[in-house]
Amino acid sequence: MPLDESAQGVYVIAPTPFHPDGRIDEASTDRMTEFFLEAGCDGMTILGVMGEAPKLDGAEALEISRRIIRRAGKAGIIVGVSAPGFAAMRALAHGVMEAGAAGVMIAPPSTLRTDDQIVAYYTQAVQAIGADIPFVLQDYPLLFQVQMTPGVIRRIVQALPSCVMLKHEDWPGLEKISALRGFQAEGSMRPISILCGNGGLFLDFECERGADGAMTGYAFPDMLVELVRLARAGERDRAHDLFDAHLPLIRYEQQFGVGLAVRKHVLMRRGVIASDAQRAPGGRLGQTAVAEVEYLLARLARHDARARLPALG
Amino acid sequence: MPLDESAQGVYVIAPTPFHPDGRIDEASTDRMTEFFLEAGCDGMTILGVMGEAPKLDGAEALEISRRIIRRAGKAGIIVGVSAPGFAAMRALAHGVMEAGAAGVMIAPPSTLRTDDQIVAYYTQAVQAIGADIPFVLQDYPLLFQVQMTPGVIRRIVQALPSCVMLKHEDWPGLEKISALRGFQAEGSMRPISILCGNGGLFLDFECERGADGAMTGYAFPDMLVELVRLARAGERDRAHDLFDAHLPLIRYEQQFGVGLAVRKHVLMRRGVIASDAQRAPGGRLGQTAVAEVEYLLARLARHDARARLPALG
Amino acid sequence: MPLDESAQGVYVIAPTPFHPDGRIDEASTDRMTEFFLEAGCDGMTILGVMGEAPKLDGAEALEISRRIIRRAGKAGIIVGVSAPGFAAMRALAHGVMEAGAAGVMIAPPSTLRTDDQIVAYYTQAVQAIGADIPFVLQDYPLLFQVQMTPGVIRRIVQALPSCVMLKHEDWPGLEKISALRGFQAEGSMRPISILCGNGGLFLDFECERGADGAMTGYAFPDMLVELVRLARAGERDRAHDLFDAHLPLIRYEQQFGVGLAVRKHVLMRRGVIASDAQRAPGGRLGQTAVAEVEYLLARLARHDARARLPALG
Amino acid sequence: MPLDESAQGVYVIAPTPFHPDGRIDEASTDRMTEFFLEAGCDGMTILGVMGEAPKLDGAEALEISRRIIRRAGKAGIIVGVSAPGFAAMRALAHGVMEAGAAGVMIAPPSTLRTDDQIVAYYTQAVQAIGADIPFVLQDYPLLFQVQMTPGVIRRIVQALPSCVMLKHEDWPGLEKISALRGFQAEGSMRPISILCGNGGLFLDFECERGADGAMTGYAFPDMLVELVRLARAGERDRAHDLFDAHLPLIRYEQQFGVGLAVRKHVLMRRGVIASDAQRAPGGRLGQTAVAEVEYLLARLARHDARARLPALG
Repeated sequence: MPLDESAQGVYVIAPTPFHPDGRIDEASTDRMTEFFLEAGCDGMTILGVMGEAPKLDGAEALEISRRIIRRAGKAGIIVGVSAPGFAAMRALAHGVMEAGAAGVMIAPPSTLRTDDQIVAYYTQAVQAIGADIPFVLQDYPLLFQVQMTPGVIRRIVQALPSCVMLKHEDWPGLEKISALRGFQAEGSMRPISILCGNGGLFLDFECERGADGAMTGYAFPDMLVELVRLARAGERDRAHDLFDAHLPLIRYEQQFGVGLAVRKHVLMRRGVIASDAQRAPGGRLGQTAVAEVEYLLARLARHDARARLPALG
Repeated sequence: MPLDESAQGVYVIAPTPFHPDGRIDEASTDRMTEFFLEAGCDGMTILGVMGEAPKLDGAEALEISRRIIRRAGKAGIIVGVSAPGFAAMRALAHGVMEAGAAGVMIAPPSTLRTDDQIVAYYTQAVQAIGADIPFVLQDYPLLFQVQMTPGVIRRIVQALPSCVMLKHEDWPGLEKISALRGFQAEGSMRPISILCGNGGLFLDFECERGADGAMTGYAFPDMLVELVRLARAGERDRAHDLFDAHLPLIRYEQQFGVGLAVRKHVLMRRGVIASDAQRAPGGRLGQTAVAEVEYLLARLARHDARARLPALG
Repeated sequence: MPLDESAQGVYVIAPTPFHPDGRIDEASTDRMTEFFLEAGCDGMTILGVMGEAPKLDGAEALEISRRIIRRAGKAGIIVGVSAPGFAAMRALAHGVMEAGAAGVMIAPPSTLRTDDQIVAYYTQAVQAIGADIPFVLQDYPLLFQVQMTPGVIRRIVQALPSCVMLKHEDWPGLEKISALRGFQAEGSMRPISILCGNGGLFLDFECERGADGAMTGYAFPDMLVELVRLARAGERDRAHDLFDAHLPLIRYEQQFGVGLAVRKHVLMRRGVIASDAQRAPGGRLGQTAVAEVEYLLARLARHDARARLPALG
Repeated sequence: MPLDESAQGVYVIAPTPFHPDGRIDEASTDRMTEFFLEAGCDGMTILGVMGEAPKLDGAEALEISRRIIRRAGKAGIIVGVSAPGFAAMRALAHGVMEAGAAGVMIAPPSTLRTDDQIVAYYTQAVQAIGADIPFVLQDYPLLFQVQMTPGVIRRIVQALPSCVMLKHEDWPGLEKISALRGFQAEGSMRPISILCGNGGLFLDFECERGADGAMTGYAFPDMLVELVRLARAGERDRAHDLFDAHLPLIRYEQQFGVGLAVRKHVLMRRGVIASDAQRAPGGRLGQTAVAEVEYLLARLARHDARARLPALG
């Protein structure tokens, strides 16, 4: 099923599991895929910033995409196809769509500055991959150094029908969601799906502002699923209670360059992946950081049974 | 008392109170100064990024500095003197030191890139203001786009004896604190005071890593004081309990460009300042944001009586 | 006479002459002012990037502005008033306009990214200084990291009647001049004066594309005056002959951070200023660079008698 | 023959010839290769910034590399292998070295800031591609936003024996060449080859400062060859005479985003390639720009017979 603007819920950002020696860990990949889907995720986003995509060569990227897509069955798999040039973007996009991906995600190159440059880039990207591939617009100024106003996002959405979703991770971003939903309400922009990233740090209020869910890699995606459901059901206090219990760890994960190590560590602690190894060059959690994460997990376990884990080796 | 490397506790980042028409609100300035000191702050930092300093002309900057310094008595006042040129930096630094400031804070201009450029800049700044004025090195890469490694900070500390404090707001920054304290332990760097900013978002662990306290503008500085005391007393769980209760609001304040509006709003709600007005051009909290802050305050009030406020207008 | 959109010719970017000990050299300032006007310049721009403005304190900036304005008589003096905040911008703008300046120049802060941010900044700047002060929009992406499309410049020009001139130093910038003149031709933008910077490196073709002249600090402003006249008279080949003779030196001046040292050196060699000193912290020409400049001057002297200078010390 | 630190002369930056419909033009590729070698170039650098490398997919990049390497015979071919990740870099580097390339060129990703980050990146790159592949360090701050001090370059050279050449295109860069040659003279850095880019805009003095030649794509590489020979022979005035005659066109080529269009146009005019087409998305010379280039060529032809071309269709 191709991705469309009705998508909602949680599309978890998936890491790429590696063996300590740097090989892709296929067993962990399968287990992780199943875990995410059993956790209630509506889909997965792979080969994103957190997926160590640039450390895979073209063949590996296609291979792991195929593996996950096969395993995921009906759940939608979105594949990051950002590349320094349109030739590589096109090749990967076509490859994964043929393998059954639901859509692709495209981040802007950090050289884009003016409104017109941003719109032109996405226009060219669609010309390169073809207008029939649904794509996710990734808006992450803190990382990419590209600032898209709500007006620019609207220009892209209106000009490019294959843009069906916004991965929203502007910071701050609450007013941006309100502005975009306001455009829809007044009829000046067609509806799109808005899923939020930024590690979930503002997901409580993002849902209230009109987001359709989350696209982030917090190591408790089962909590994200529950949170989005509570928010959609209007259970505001319960949603915040759940969110607040996880916030200390969510916040701890939101450390650039360290966050992936935390995520992989927690996923390993939860038994989802066999190793928290990153392919070189990769960061590692120091001893103190591991102890800090364990402390946070122990505190979380008082509120959420999912964090009750067997003691660390 | 001039600032030195033994400084610890909380130096609150003070906003500049304005009347709705843009004039400086002197009565609120006095009340705020007293409130911060009664809250247990060891000092205040004024005319920083959050102090709307660039909206004050030279005479106003000096005038409000004098007013706060007089009112603050023995508490140390640190004044931000960052400027596009050394002439303005020198003039303000001399003016506020004559008025009784404890020290000054200097941020790096965003054009600095290489290690040598950073060290050269601070060397020149000290030549400009004089080696007898204690200064705080502000390390805030996310805002200033200048990245200082622990090694560069050590070079500055070792070369410039008047550098007595680091305002640490790198993100992530936990390992940086450990690295700097490691330099001290091995004797390769003389001791400095490390106070942490970033809105306090990592203050729980920063204290555990060796920070001496906080220099940030969270609208509950009384909580910061308590947190730092608990951490120093080794009351780890109680420190985290307190921190976690405030984290949803701390996190909400950590929105670039919006944070100051939240802070001024909460300080107004607490009766500290009369108006949350910013001098033009300034941001304002929208209606939805105000309601979100009220919701967070109400939730916080269940854990911390300081957040029990009379209902909004 | 206030600056207006009919301005043309050469507004030379003036350095600030210093004694070797860092004091402002008033005698050189007077001599330089007279030299520029006798050279045929229509005006001068002071306190710009090349004027070491940030090294002057507020009183000095106003004092030297008054001195030059008095000396310049009818020639228009434009004063750079870019500042980190609107309070300082407003104070300096009012001070120099009262002293008789023709207008002010405003550069964008390097944090501006989106089209809307750029337009908003200039709108706020005009609110701060008042709509009655003619201002020059400085478009220098390479230095300021702010990219203004022709469309954004049009928005500013149309929204702000006090914007009367563009200091054009985009690189590349030829098509931008054509685009802006095209806007005027089609009636979608009111006429503005366009003077070109970038050290004059493209001035030959910029004049042909529709620029009204130059605003740059090349140490032979008398040549710039002649070049602009030849271009306006349609003497294309003679204009290029003159330009090409100077191009090796123009190019040599176009070295970021070094250019000012070259300019001051050549102005000193021409007897215009007494010393090539920059106020600290400032760059200096090394021995090899001085020899290179001398070699270029000697080569230029074969084509242009103005470069025939007595041998160096 | 693998590239080593004795390399000198001209390694021309080669564009990738395309048919107007976007296919690679193999006949033009062969003709261009022969033209460059007959012009006296010692080697060629392909798939660089100017080679539209990101528009080629992996297979195309390897295919055109093989074609040129075969054709070039003994001349050394350097291949740009910069990539967003080490997997792609490694794959391309191994592919082209197996095909007979002399070495590879690696540009720094624009996210690098601190000295340590830069050194670490090149260390990791060498780990990825292997220490037996000679590589060129590309230092182009204006484009890549990464600033390497002479000290950082020395650290890389000393730590990584496979770094045999610097592509020097810092701006300004004359003092940097002097500093690096000074390191060699004092014995603190082993010798490396320094070839200069930046379109050749400072090549006259760069040779005098100690550069070994040029690595740039100016459309008259035959002139570059002659210039480097004159400089090495100590024929200073003749070198500058030749350089100055070409400087107006060299300067015109130095327009970011436009330069490639100028180069391809001139190479087409010289009969080297059949079309000046760029693969989409690509810039094109407007009518006015074409006329400006023709004018520059006509003026150049008075001094250099190589610029005497049949009139434009």
